[in-house]
Amino acid sequence: MAFLSVFTPVLAVVLCLVIGFVLVKSWDTETTSTSPGKSKGATKGEKRPWVDQDLQDDTEITAKEDDGDADDDWGDSTEEENLTQLPYSPQRYPEETMLQRSKEFYTLMNQRRSVRFISPEPVPREVIDNVIHTAGTAPSGAHTEPWTFIVVSDPDIKHQIRLIVEEEEEMNYRQRMGEKWVQDLAKLSKKNTFSFSFPSSCRTNWIKEYLDVAPYLILIFKQTYGILPNGKKKTHYYNEISVSISCGILLAALQNAGLVTVTSTPLNCGPKLRLLLKRPANEKLLMLLPVGYPASDATVPDLKRKHLDDILVHV
Amino acid sequence: MAFLSVFTPVLAVVLCLVIGFVLVKSWDTETTSTSPGKSKGATKGEKRPWVDQDLQDDTEITAKEDDGDADDDWGDSTEEENLTQLPYSPQRYPEETMLQRSKEFYTLMNQRRSVRFISPEPVPREVIDNVIHTAGTAPSGAHTEPWTFIVVSDPDIKHQIRLIVEEEEEMNYRQRMGEKWVQDLAKLSKKNTFSFSFPSSCRTNWIKEYLDVAPYLILIFKQTYGILPNGKKKTHYYNEISVSISCGILLAALQNAGLVTVTSTPLNCGPKLRLLLKRPANEKLLMLLPVGYPASDATVPDLKRKHLDDILVHV
Repeated sequence: MAFLSVFTPVLAVVLCLVIGFVLVKSWDTETTSTSPGKSKGATKGEKRPWVDQDLQDDTEITAKEDDGDADDDWGDSTEEENLTQLPYSPQRYPEETMLQRSKEFYTLMNQRRSVRFISPEPVPREVIDNVIHTAGTAPSGAHTEPWTFIVVSDPDIKHQIRLIVEEEEEMNYRQRMGEKWVQDLAKLSKKNTFSFSFPSSCRTNWIKEYLDVAPYLILIFKQTYGILPNGKKKTHYYNEISVSISCGILLAALQNAGLVTVTSTPLNCGPKLRLLLKRPANEKLLMLLPVGYPASDATVPDLKRKHLDDILVHV
Repeated sequence: MAFLSVFTPVLAVVLCLVIGFVLVKSWDTETTSTSPGKSKGATKGEKRPWVDQDLQDDTEITAKEDDGDADDDWGDSTEEENLTQLPYSPQRYPEETMLQRSKEFYTLMNQRRSVRFISPEPVPREVIDNVIHTAGTAPSGAHTEPWTFIVVSDPDIKHQIRLIVEEEEEMNYRQRMGEKWVQDLAKLSKKNTFSFSFPSSCRTNWIKEYLDVAPYLILIFKQTYGILPNGKKKTHYYNEISVSISCGILLAALQNAGLVTVTSTPLNCGPKLRLLLKRPANEKLLMLLPVGYPASDATVPDLKRKHLDDILVHV
């Protein structure tokens, strides 16, 4: 009995530690799976397959290294403050011309569609260069220009990219999408016979023919941070928004040139594709665009766009 | 002594509980401050003032409601699967024309600059409508079109927006930017006398004259989720990327019309501006663009853009 009364406190402590450990562990898994800002989430966040684990904006991770350029007015950075100001007087059009130009540009852009049937015909490389040069004119947080455009025309690399994307896609559907998803797929497969004759237009499987067929694959990487002369990391604020804006201008440039693409954000392929293309660790895949002429038998779903009144409010 | 030996286990348990509680508390603060995906971070994440607490993509939060449309090929959604396919044959240009068009579009876009000196001259509203209609042609995850464009021309509302933005800006600089930041500001204020003659071009204070002066303020909201007919939330996948792409096309359309703007993402003003403009809870402010003609005496910093070779890699 004396023996017990001596050991009871020790037992109590051990018990508490065990309980505490279990508690903290569960806490850890919970928080990592709800914070896509951590790559740990990649393995633990299986609950949300649609969140690309390599896609998150790492600003908050790298920011601690150097927070000299945080600002809300883009390009309005320290460097800029020290630059001389130049007069700026861009071309100004008469009202009639403005109206005409804005109408014509709308008509041109409104003809753009996501196209999965891309012709293998070659496209002049200079056009692709011009289009990407245009994307590079986008604004970016503190003028960091945090984008890298990888243009793949090598058939072997294109095929390796296809294998990586399709493998991940298959996993996404088979393992990650869960029961509800599998049922949806089953339903679709039954009714949607059309899909099978055009696999790459079909969401119910993971075949991406256009990754082999398109003359060019443009892989757009966001640079989550830069390296300063002193070797320190330089945070790229709003890097994901900046690169997405640049992609918008890229899509406009492609449409203007008469080329087609389909905007895709391959789920969780980022790390593998980054390694395949030998990109540095600060670059993360944001988008993959197969680019070319539309196939002669290309089709698009009969989609409607929202009316102007549904997206615009005057105050 | 017997008294003590009876109470030792109790004391031990209390001690463990206290230690455990302290440990878990610190854990909590840490994780919330590194996960901008939680609005709790807004109050606790003071360490990272540049992370707009209202800006994060809520996909992972709302996704649990309905995960029927997760996909990597945008617009490749269930609805689409059930739509009839239409032949698509957009205009195709001869190679010479393509080259010419891609060059001209680059030249036009390369003239775009972020301009903070905006003329108060009126701009035809129809041009603004066309420009936003153009932005609405952007692709979006599962064709959710998750954007709302609020165009403010009312002087009072513009001024209220200015007050909200400037108040937040001042707080950002004064309270949140930390010691290092305050020192940087002091340095800049000393050497950068130029700034004071053009406050709105100066990062070292928080005056945003253009919010009063510009004939239009375009506030771009991302819809983090939609509401299904059955009242359930419909997740808008990649809504932040989609809306940013749409902003890229908007910037291209403005430039094409001869109008100027400065891309800004007001730090933490989202909630106040959302309430001011009476926007629903699923809409979050992504960007604020003052739009108009450039002022006759407008200047821009002597910035250079990266060379094509620094942003483009052929494989």
